Amino acid sequence: MSVDAVGRTRRGRGARKAIRQSRDITMLPALKHGLPLVEPMTAEQVARIDDASMGILEDVGVMFRDPIALADWKRAGADVRGETVHLDRGLVRALIASIPSRFTYVARNPANNLPFGEDHSIFVPMTGAPYLRDVDDARRNPTLRDLADFHKLSHMLPAMHSTAHHIVEPYDHPISQRHLRITYSSMKYSDKTFMGMTTSPKNAEDVMEMCAILFGKEFMLQNPVVTGNCNGNSPLVWDETMLGAMRAFARYRQPVLCSPFVLGGANTPAGVAPSVAQLNAEALSALAYTQVIQKGTPAIYGHYLSTVSMKSGAPMAGTPEISLMNMMIGQMARYYDVPWRTSNTLGGAKTFDAQAGYESAATMMAVLMSGANYIWHSAGWNEAGMHCSMAKFVVDAEQCAMGHRMMSGVNWDDFDEALQAVRDVGPGGHYLGHPHTLENFQRAFFMPELFDNNAIEQWQADGAVEINERALTRVRDLLNDYEEPRLDAGVDEALRDYIARREREIPAADALNQDH
Amino acid sequence: MSVDAVGRTRRGRGARKAIRQSRDITMLPALKHGLPLVEPMTAEQVARIDDASMGILEDVGVMFRDPIALADWKRAGADVRGETVHLDRGLVRALIASIPSRFTYVARNPANNLPFGEDHSIFVPMTGAPYLRDVDDARRNPTLRDLADFHKLSHMLPAMHSTAHHIVEPYDHPISQRHLRITYSSMKYSDKTFMGMTTSPKNAEDVMEMCAILFGKEFMLQNPVVTGNCNGNSPLVWDETMLGAMRAFARYRQPVLCSPFVLGGANTPAGVAPSVAQLNAEALSALAYTQVIQKGTPAIYGHYLSTVSMKSGAPMAGTPEISLMNMMIGQMARYYDVPWRTSNTLGGAKTFDAQAGYESAATMMAVLMSGANYIWHSAGWNEAGMHCSMAKFVVDAEQCAMGHRMMSGVNWDDFDEALQAVRDVGPGGHYLGHPHTLENFQRAFFMPELFDNNAIEQWQADGAVEINERALTRVRDLLNDYEEPRLDAGVDEALRDYIARREREIPAADALNQDH
Repeated sequence: MSVDAVGRTRRGRGARKAIRQSRDITMLPALKHGLPLVEPMTAEQVARIDDASMGILEDVGVMFRDPIALADWKRAGADVRGETVHLDRGLVRALIASIPSRFTYVARNPANNLPFGEDHSIFVPMTGAPYLRDVDDARRNPTLRDLADFHKLSHMLPAMHSTAHHIVEPYDHPISQRHLRITYSSMKYSDKTFMGMTTSPKNAEDVMEMCAILFGKEFMLQNPVVTGNCNGNSPLVWDETMLGAMRAFARYRQPVLCSPFVLGGANTPAGVAPSVAQLNAEALSALAYTQVIQKGTPAIYGHYLSTVSMKSGAPMAGTPEISLMNMMIGQMARYYDVPWRTSNTLGGAKTFDAQAGYESAATMMAVLMSGANYIWHSAGWNEAGMHCSMAKFVVDAEQCAMGHRMMSGVNWDDFDEALQAVRDVGPGGHYLGHPHTLENFQRAFFMPELFDNNAIEQWQADGAVEINERALTRVRDLLNDYEEPRLDAGVDEALRDYIARREREIPAADALNQDH
Repeated sequence: MSVDAVGRTRRGRGARKAIRQSRDITMLPALKHGLPLVEPMTAEQVARIDDASMGILEDVGVMFRDPIALADWKRAGADVRGETVHLDRGLVRALIASIPSRFTYVARNPANNLPFGEDHSIFVPMTGAPYLRDVDDARRNPTLRDLADFHKLSHMLPAMHSTAHHIVEPYDHPISQRHLRITYSSMKYSDKTFMGMTTSPKNAEDVMEMCAILFGKEFMLQNPVVTGNCNGNSPLVWDETMLGAMRAFARYRQPVLCSPFVLGGANTPAGVAPSVAQLNAEALSALAYTQVIQKGTPAIYGHYLSTVSMKSGAPMAGTPEISLMNMMIGQMARYYDVPWRTSNTLGGAKTFDAQAGYESAATMMAVLMSGANYIWHSAGWNEAGMHCSMAKFVVDAEQCAMGHRMMSGVNWDDFDEALQAVRDVGPGGHYLGHPHTLENFQRAFFMPELFDNNAIEQWQADGAVEINERALTRVRDLLNDYEEPRLDAGVDEALRDYIARREREIPAADALNQDH
């Protein structure tokens, strides 16, 4: 694609149109695994983790700090002692058996529907950043307009399968009403699937109502259209906020990620295998509870993983133990036949420097090899999630496109033709002019657009620009070229009416719960 | 390790000693694979590549542009037509059967000996850079002193299993005599294993003579002590320089890498599977020839892989097709039961920016999952190999240490104890003070020293330093702390005498062959 060359020589509306025509923003299909996954555990070791986790659920129990959940569990036959629920392994297995192993996410543009689960994976942008690094690389608090820009970028980046929800926290709007504007932004600026806020049960209900306006409630009861996330408090605690939000989603049969929040060594034991055993117990308890609420509702085995530096207490990413834990969790989720979620491109770098690159790529490769289905935080994450970088957002998205290509496996379609080319060219020849090359070069080898592979002389002639600045130029170009996939006018009006009514009802407080 | 804190408050010899005592430079053992490898091909697909490669060797043939090799092949029963050697698959299989599938590299310090091949891998620094980025981040031509510094760093970085040879090209010494000084530098500044120059048959013979001074010729005939690299010219050509060097090594039974040099799409077909089929034919032809020279001599299936941008003609790295090809080549090498070499941390970035990080980490993860035994170019590579970055050198080495940890797999030793900790801590507790944590935290989770995972306020208070500058500080500290592992005085004198004699014999020309 000679986008930049075209962009620099033409001007105005005609030029932008030319760029759009040469820029392919068609979403990649859901990734279908074409490579075998990395499985570090033998069947016996999988059984050992399962047995350890079930033992924890039976003997130690899990705290559900929520009266409704405790009552639900009693009715379901669990052994409830105070706030601690002891779960028999037979009960857990019976409950999770009704979780669908695969389903289809429906987007408002049916071309963007996504098969999900088993051997299908999707890439979802990062969320929850209290800061951004903007198009001028300034680190500051984000606004609704910044959030809209990230939704626009997610819409235009082919490897992003979702626009998520609050990629960045819009600080220019009262926190108590923010979920409404965030949801509207996800729905308005893209026609891909998205996420729903779970910052409180009430907020989650608002998301469900807005989704019902967009898709219809009856339709939602048959089709997943949105995803919620419920974080656990490791070790072994689920709280009222998250459980209430989970119930709101489950009533509409919308999938939630059941995500223990692991700081390895601080809220789990200091070790890979026992951390996975604990996390697995936590995830199972929440997965089981989704089926207590609503049998057959889709649910996703989740987790947020970091390890803690024992020198500073800081969370770390891109480390070997996180890779191993991802691979092991993948095995456990497949053992239970449930879809699972992981986190991609994590890192603790403060700028978009080489540290950020190493951390993100190492994490992505491990996550892909682990076979995670819901690959969250796939673009923009930096500084341990404290900021979303616009530059990194577009580079990560290109990395995901490369990961998508790799995990799709090897193409054998033209193997025999290509062997004929070897015979035609012979020793000492070259392939550049051969008909097989001319026919296949465009798709044979991925050509990253944000990596510079030119000779240094050419790079210097182009201004000696490092990847952060090149990526910011790409961000500006994308936002310039953005075209809104219009909402139906009636639906748009109904959504705006709903938001206006709810904003009258909800006090504009500024100190409610924050999502992670 | 509180190295920096100590370094900043103390001064002089005592301070350096204190730092040394706190800095562990003990070499990691050879990596033993503790994870299953990623194998993208079915057994049928492996057989299909094998059949295609053997068909190429039989029907198309391989050019050996070297009269001695052609004569050798005739005697060995090959069908030689002009410079093209047609190899029957039966002959190829019979020849490669005598290549050892594993052996032990012997270093001058026996503590640094390395089991090699099958499920053992080693990390070797990059070589051949005509420029370096130095401790002041200046890009310039290197000197012998720079080369010595890289050998010192390789000596001190635990994950580096070798000091290689001409990590950078010492431009301050005549090219015709350079191989002598390079070899001496590898031998002198470290007691790890190293590589030997193959820039000409004569140069390779000098390397063998110098190794004989260090180890004894009889010893060398029984023990691999050095590694040479012989690049092929794809498609399907081996030249006189490389073949002569190969013969020099094989006569001493020292291992060579048989490395087709692939620019995918330019000198191979535009496709992953056919490129592997051609490369495999090329590698097999050279592996087979090593056994014609000297039956039973160790040899390593090699390759250099890049794909070519069809937009600019530039070689690319860190791309999905290179990862796939690495995984496939690993399967082929295991099918033939020979050790194999790959390239690590490749990339085309011009500075140590995020591009460099992504490319290096993506390559490393794929290379590890592929099970490569000789993991060359594992530190310092940047700008498509045009420069070796001192900063990147130390960061890459830490990445290799992390990769080593990951590929070692999951530790189950303390699993039951750790589960007891879960029972002790219970829901809502924390692990930081638990005896199991105190006993295990140092080794449970890798703590990268060159990644900054602190909060931004701490990072700002520390001077807001990005990884390039942090790494350069580490380079300065390491070089300050370096202690030479002294050569035996008699050996040292004999080596110096040999070099002096050869430098009198060899004209100080400046336009001989260059190694890649």
